[in-house]
Amino acid sequence: GWARAVRGLLLDVSGVLYDSGADGGVPIAGSAEAVRRIKASGLKLRLCTNETQATRENFVKKLQGMGFDVSVAEVTAPAPAACHILKERGLRPHLLVHDDLVPEFAEIDKTNPNCVVLGDAAENFTYANLNEAFRLLIGMEKPVLISLGRGRYYKETDGLKLDVGAYMKALEYACDVQAEVVGKPSKRFFESALAEMGVPPEQAIMIGDDIVNDVGGAQRCGMRALQVRTGKYRPSDENHPEVKPDAYVNNLAEAVDIILQQ
Amino acid sequence: GWARAVRGLLLDVSGVLYDSGADGGVPIAGSAEAVRRIKASGLKLRLCTNETQATRENFVKKLQGMGFDVSVAEVTAPAPAACHILKERGLRPHLLVHDDLVPEFAEIDKTNPNCVVLGDAAENFTYANLNEAFRLLIGMEKPVLISLGRGRYYKETDGLKLDVGAYMKALEYACDVQAEVVGKPSKRFFESALAEMGVPPEQAIMIGDDIVNDVGGAQRCGMRALQVRTGKYRPSDENHPEVKPDAYVNNLAEAVDIILQQ
Repeated sequence: GWARAVRGLLLDVSGVLYDSGADGGVPIAGSAEAVRRIKASGLKLRLCTNETQATRENFVKKLQGMGFDVSVAEVTAPAPAACHILKERGLRPHLLVHDDLVPEFAEIDKTNPNCVVLGDAAENFTYANLNEAFRLLIGMEKPVLISLGRGRYYKETDGLKLDVGAYMKALEYACDVQAEVVGKPSKRFFESALAEMGVPPEQAIMIGDDIVNDVGGAQRCGMRALQVRTGKYRPSDENHPEVKPDAYVNNLAEAVDIILQQ
Repeated sequence: GWARAVRGLLLDVSGVLYDSGADGGVPIAGSAEAVRRIKASGLKLRLCTNETQATRENFVKKLQGMGFDVSVAEVTAPAPAACHILKERGLRPHLLVHDDLVPEFAEIDKTNPNCVVLGDAAENFTYANLNEAFRLLIGMEKPVLISLGRGRYYKETDGLKLDVGAYMKALEYACDVQAEVVGKPSKRFFESALAEMGVPPEQAIMIGDDIVNDVGGAQRCGMRALQVRTGKYRPSDENHPEVKPDAYVNNLAEAVDIILQQ
């Protein structure tokens, strides 16, 4: 019964459409065809990603190069969501993010910072850069730390890497502040993806490989959520103490098969 | 009444004996004389420090150079305490510490690591080194993270720096483990300092500038504890929600004056 009355699909990207690999990534078998079938069916589609190592433009170019029929206008990502919050609240960020993400903040006033925006800065996570972000925060009358996601780690071809959440915790502890997380599993982030699709939560399904950030987050917004058995999925996820997906599917193609049969 | 029946004094070092400064540090007025008076009085003395950027040998040399009559045998510091634990439990550490601390671990087997020891590594806190420590930990069947202190930050002449506690939190979160803290405010650490002095807690007084790690930690071991108004002391410490020193003193010299009058 979980596939009934669906009008829109939110898809996680890494681990659902493609796997990170040596040359930037390889598509997961059947996923490009599944995206085409979603579009042909008239269902609304939204890519809902925590990607912060590239602008949406470059991210979408990479996906198109792998054969996915997707456009920038279909992507909900943390950096643009953060820009919205910064403008709304008159915040001027100091950025500790990946070099390739900086263009997303081109139109934001960054003079005399009154907050810190933290992304998966990768090689930019240096001792000097972390101390600089810390000093700015601790020097603020009311420190504001905005974190683009709260992931613990991720896998690249040369091994596991600490994700933004680890550095977020370091700054939270040092400054005795609580970061505001933009991106999954933030409720506001899912809600903006739904608003952009024009679909209410009870008519949307989230499909992702992350039991906590994709499945748990979407369910808390009133959506149904599936976990795919691709990407970072592990069999132990099926015994997660707090989150239970509406269904498991082997991959995106299988999910789309079932949904389109309704 | 707090100065009665004292047989031993535990002294924090940075902020009590000297202040960190441009050329490595400047003695706090009256502290060198106070140390000499403690020794002349027959009171037992122990330096109880969380210093992890130098071996005890080099740390003591620096203090002697500033006029303090102290010896290596009088210092209780995290690295030797960690070595004791490593030997006791057959742990082989991967070290993420300051270069100058490495010699303290000379006699410890570091092949095929089954734990990570984290100190204030300063410039060694690189993205690559943090990922390496993380990968080793997450790859262990039962990850063991030993942290030499849990400080949030400290001040150097060129500004505030993130301390070991911030990096400890990052690794704790990424690996979903709880670090074992060696050094103040660990109860075991204070107890070994007391044992080395041969003085029971009720006959000892801790004197420090850190309301939580010095004062709170020592009191939890049954010692009396004074906060000096030097070093990192801040007036707001006097309203600390959880810790109340047995007394405040302006500096070490004043504490010794009062104690020796008994």
